[in-house]
Amino acid sequence: MTSYKAPVEEVLFLLNDVFQIERYNNLPGFTDATPDLVETIVSEAGKFCEEVLQPLNAIGDREGCIRNKDGTVQTPPGFIEAYRAFVDGGWVGLAADPAFGGQGLPYTLAAIINEFASSANMAFAMYPGLSQGAIAAILAHGSEEQRQIFAPKLIGGQWSGTMNLTEPHCGTDLGLLKTKARPNEDGSYSITGQKIFISAGEHDLTENIIHLVLARIDGAPAGIKGISLFVVPKFLVAPDGSLGPRNEVACGAIEHKMGIHGNATCVMNYDGAKGWLIGEPHRGLNAMFTMMNEARLGVAIQGLAQSEAAYQNAVTYARERLQGRALNGAMNPDKPADPIIVHPDVRRNLMTIRAFNEAARALVLWTALKSDVANRSQDSAAIQAAADHLGLLTPVLKGVLTDTGFENTVRAQQIFGGHGYIAEWGMEQFVRDARIAMIYEGANGIQALDLVGRKLPKDNGRAMKSFLGEVHNFIKDHEASEALRVYLEPLKQGAEYLRKATFWFLENAVAKPENAGAGASDYMHLFGLVALGFMWAKIARTALEKKAAGTGNAASMDARLITGKYFMEQIMPQAQAHLARITAGAETMMALPADMF
Amino acid sequence: MTSYKAPVEEVLFLLNDVFQIERYNNLPGFTDATPDLVETIVSEAGKFCEEVLQPLNAIGDREGCIRNKDGTVQTPPGFIEAYRAFVDGGWVGLAADPAFGGQGLPYTLAAIINEFASSANMAFAMYPGLSQGAIAAILAHGSEEQRQIFAPKLIGGQWSGTMNLTEPHCGTDLGLLKTKARPNEDGSYSITGQKIFISAGEHDLTENIIHLVLARIDGAPAGIKGISLFVVPKFLVAPDGSLGPRNEVACGAIEHKMGIHGNATCVMNYDGAKGWLIGEPHRGLNAMFTMMNEARLGVAIQGLAQSEAAYQNAVTYARERLQGRALNGAMNPDKPADPIIVHPDVRRNLMTIRAFNEAARALVLWTALKSDVANRSQDSAAIQAAADHLGLLTPVLKGVLTDTGFENTVRAQQIFGGHGYIAEWGMEQFVRDARIAMIYEGANGIQALDLVGRKLPKDNGRAMKSFLGEVHNFIKDHEASEALRVYLEPLKQGAEYLRKATFWFLENAVAKPENAGAGASDYMHLFGLVALGFMWAKIARTALEKKAAGTGNAASMDARLITGKYFMEQIMPQAQAHLARITAGAETMMALPADMF
Repeated sequence: MTSYKAPVEEVLFLLNDVFQIERYNNLPGFTDATPDLVETIVSEAGKFCEEVLQPLNAIGDREGCIRNKDGTVQTPPGFIEAYRAFVDGGWVGLAADPAFGGQGLPYTLAAIINEFASSANMAFAMYPGLSQGAIAAILAHGSEEQRQIFAPKLIGGQWSGTMNLTEPHCGTDLGLLKTKARPNEDGSYSITGQKIFISAGEHDLTENIIHLVLARIDGAPAGIKGISLFVVPKFLVAPDGSLGPRNEVACGAIEHKMGIHGNATCVMNYDGAKGWLIGEPHRGLNAMFTMMNEARLGVAIQGLAQSEAAYQNAVTYARERLQGRALNGAMNPDKPADPIIVHPDVRRNLMTIRAFNEAARALVLWTALKSDVANRSQDSAAIQAAADHLGLLTPVLKGVLTDTGFENTVRAQQIFGGHGYIAEWGMEQFVRDARIAMIYEGANGIQALDLVGRKLPKDNGRAMKSFLGEVHNFIKDHEASEALRVYLEPLKQGAEYLRKATFWFLENAVAKPENAGAGASDYMHLFGLVALGFMWAKIARTALEKKAAGTGNAASMDARLITGKYFMEQIMPQAQAHLARITAGAETMMALPADMF
Repeated sequence: MTSYKAPVEEVLFLLNDVFQIERYNNLPGFTDATPDLVETIVSEAGKFCEEVLQPLNAIGDREGCIRNKDGTVQTPPGFIEAYRAFVDGGWVGLAADPAFGGQGLPYTLAAIINEFASSANMAFAMYPGLSQGAIAAILAHGSEEQRQIFAPKLIGGQWSGTMNLTEPHCGTDLGLLKTKARPNEDGSYSITGQKIFISAGEHDLTENIIHLVLARIDGAPAGIKGISLFVVPKFLVAPDGSLGPRNEVACGAIEHKMGIHGNATCVMNYDGAKGWLIGEPHRGLNAMFTMMNEARLGVAIQGLAQSEAAYQNAVTYARERLQGRALNGAMNPDKPADPIIVHPDVRRNLMTIRAFNEAARALVLWTALKSDVANRSQDSAAIQAAADHLGLLTPVLKGVLTDTGFENTVRAQQIFGGHGYIAEWGMEQFVRDARIAMIYEGANGIQALDLVGRKLPKDNGRAMKSFLGEVHNFIKDHEASEALRVYLEPLKQGAEYLRKATFWFLENAVAKPENAGAGASDYMHLFGLVALGFMWAKIARTALEKKAAGTGNAASMDARLITGKYFMEQIMPQAQAHLARITAGAETMMALPADMF
């Protein structure tokens, strides 16, 4: 019953007008990405997601994945064909290294397509999505032989990848993991142990599945400094790339989950499976971390994607559902009632989602462009600045976009009244699917700790100073603009609260780290408000410029100006509450003895 | 995998110490409710819910209800036996009029038992829960004959009741409803139409089901002033109370829902079913409204109940799951990791839920006591004051307790990490079940409008003045107390924001009602913060008194004082953000043309 239209116009406005992608023409892959090509790619991707992936979303939820008695797993009806079409479209390797068969286009474009695909069908999009992590790890840390064997097939989509971290007794604290790797005489390892929550762990979409597995080599040190990364293919691969016998790794069960039923979340049993070390021994977590930023950005995008899909359907319903009368007098006097979009409370929910979606998309693209700079530039100062941004903003995006994205699916569902609770309307699926993004790839509490404990103090706070400086400079550069004042004043206030919170941590959390832990989540959300508010300021500036120049659609520029103003009036006021909570500190929070809960 | 322990000690503390239930001894039913009897009833109810209802909660979710081809509906395995035990325990008619077989005990006790039952098994608790509305409507508005026929069997639990309001094209706006009632020659009516979302519409728990149905008598005026209320039994009832033939009402389908799978949500088709008018013609909505307060309070309790159940399981997990180390140094140096309850972010979630649950329970009991006064007192001034409170607070409780209750189930789920997303752990069921309480019995946006548009201005704001006056007097009475200051200062600030918001509506919403609609939801939540904060102030006063007197468990008094302080530090700061949003007004919210969304 749901539908989806990819926000192509919005994306092009952000890429071309707000972030001026042509300024990145010096980077590999960007020169080829002419405005025409970008428009074609984004439009084609949108169409594919609307027409091929979206119709399978409800089916995937309803039918789920089935594990057969022999351990094979069937994906929902239609997924095989859709995956083939996705591969044939070249979407898997869009941004991958051309030396291994990729198209080498900007990662930023891949991020856009990830949004569209996740809006249309999040459970499906995870299959090719997980291959990205495997590709990144193998290219960054694998031997030349490993790259040649695995990367082209992963990039081409004939094979897919997985990430095997979690075990029954450890998720967040990977230092506890028990899976063992015993060296074989041929240089390979024999991997034994159980991994859980393995997305796309087993399925029928690809010829082979390449598992990246964290395990402990016999005799390795305890804790996280004894963990190594291995590549463990489902089918062993001969040096010529042909498939050999089945490896000793199998799906023991599929989890019954709240949502993303179309993706097979597997218990994976390794029973002496052959694996090969990637990178150095005991440095597995390090290898994992190099692909963390993009993987976490991918999850952030899922939060936005579900928020967008839910929003679109809520708008349609709010325009069509007739119920009650506008407070200012009937809008449809000839009909029995007015559409519910006339009611302020319905508007409030729609505007709140909209004010998030547009800014969140801008934040994703801004950050994706930084990722492209960090990974492709030759200029070391530019690389450092981009890497600083990426490191600092990634936990904010992951935490804030998935928390808020989930809340927004709940808001959108609420607009449907009772119908929102009924499966056939499709709104409750958005809620159930969106929920996982707050949990996986590092639960959001962990993102907040990563931000406050690691990213903030790194290099004496260089990244944070640079971020606040950029916001400050933008405000200063535009302080003469009367039209921008309604955006810049609240942004300035929000940035000031963020600065105060940062200093509060400096003064209070060094001696008492619990003060940082207690305020971390509020700090992350305060940061998110400022970052999203900054995006609105940028969007508003561009919209005003385009209006003044008479370019672009005036009505849609006005819509942006209104939505940004709504953000400042209705969403930014939250900033002060976050600051108040942070500065209340940890004492009361930690005061209750554990047995008194 | 979940468990539940009824919070008996907490309830007794609130009833006996905070609200001093013995002060209500002049009311019918309260004299019998001696402290010993109350303790016995509350403990027995708790035990029953823990042992009989809770073990069926996951089964009900997994198995759901089944509609057979003949239109009959099977409830999940075990529900028939549990319902029988519930009836045999006398729980259905606990607070009902003794003249019709009830026990006549305080409604307040029934509210407590409703919380326990809803925590243990919300889908189950709805079956007897819905009978309460039918009992109330028939006793308040039915003829003597109707009361004699229907009330004793409903009160005894042999029959159950339903509420039939919603139709496919109308939920909130009941003026649009189409179901028809044609007068028969024998004084009955012939009812034809379709009702949807009928909870417990058809099932196998009782001999008969008594449907209360809103319909329009032929020739009735359009809109809500042409709606009448009918009683339509599934099986016709002979004057001697024996069951006659099947009536022409049938379950056409069961909805597939996000949650509460154990309750049969039915499409009910009326095809010339025999019904009897309850009360006056065209005054059906009025009759419905008389039972609205208790029904909405019942839903508010569901929000608290799910929050409590989810909290308890999250506490257990947080105490047992070993992951990471405490920031202040290992707590369990001999184990591989510390329990996650040592981590501030886990505490933050637990404390946030806890700080809500205890105050929400107090607010429910305080309001339930007012309901008892309003319905049972002989003192007209007391009745008026209690009815004012009940009318004003009911939408606040419904909206705030269900919104926050749902949020808290999400928080509790988050503590489980990936396990929270897996069905067998049971946490995601709490989220799915809790979600409906925000929607039914008037979606929360409607509660906010009821509060701001109807309850606030009624009688020149008498109820609101009285509420704010009571808070003010409490603060003034205790301003000398140093120990209470940490509770009273934030409460005073919150009440001041609430007063400001109220005045802002007075000044800005009379001429522009959209300003009220735009701020209604924030106003409701601001009100909720003040009301919950007031409960904490009362609890803290009592806890301090008992500590000073050396009565009661000192550790549990301290736990209350800490939790209340946490509420003031971490939750009350939200008040200012609500005020900022309210005073931003409707203009920007309403500015976007409907076709630009």
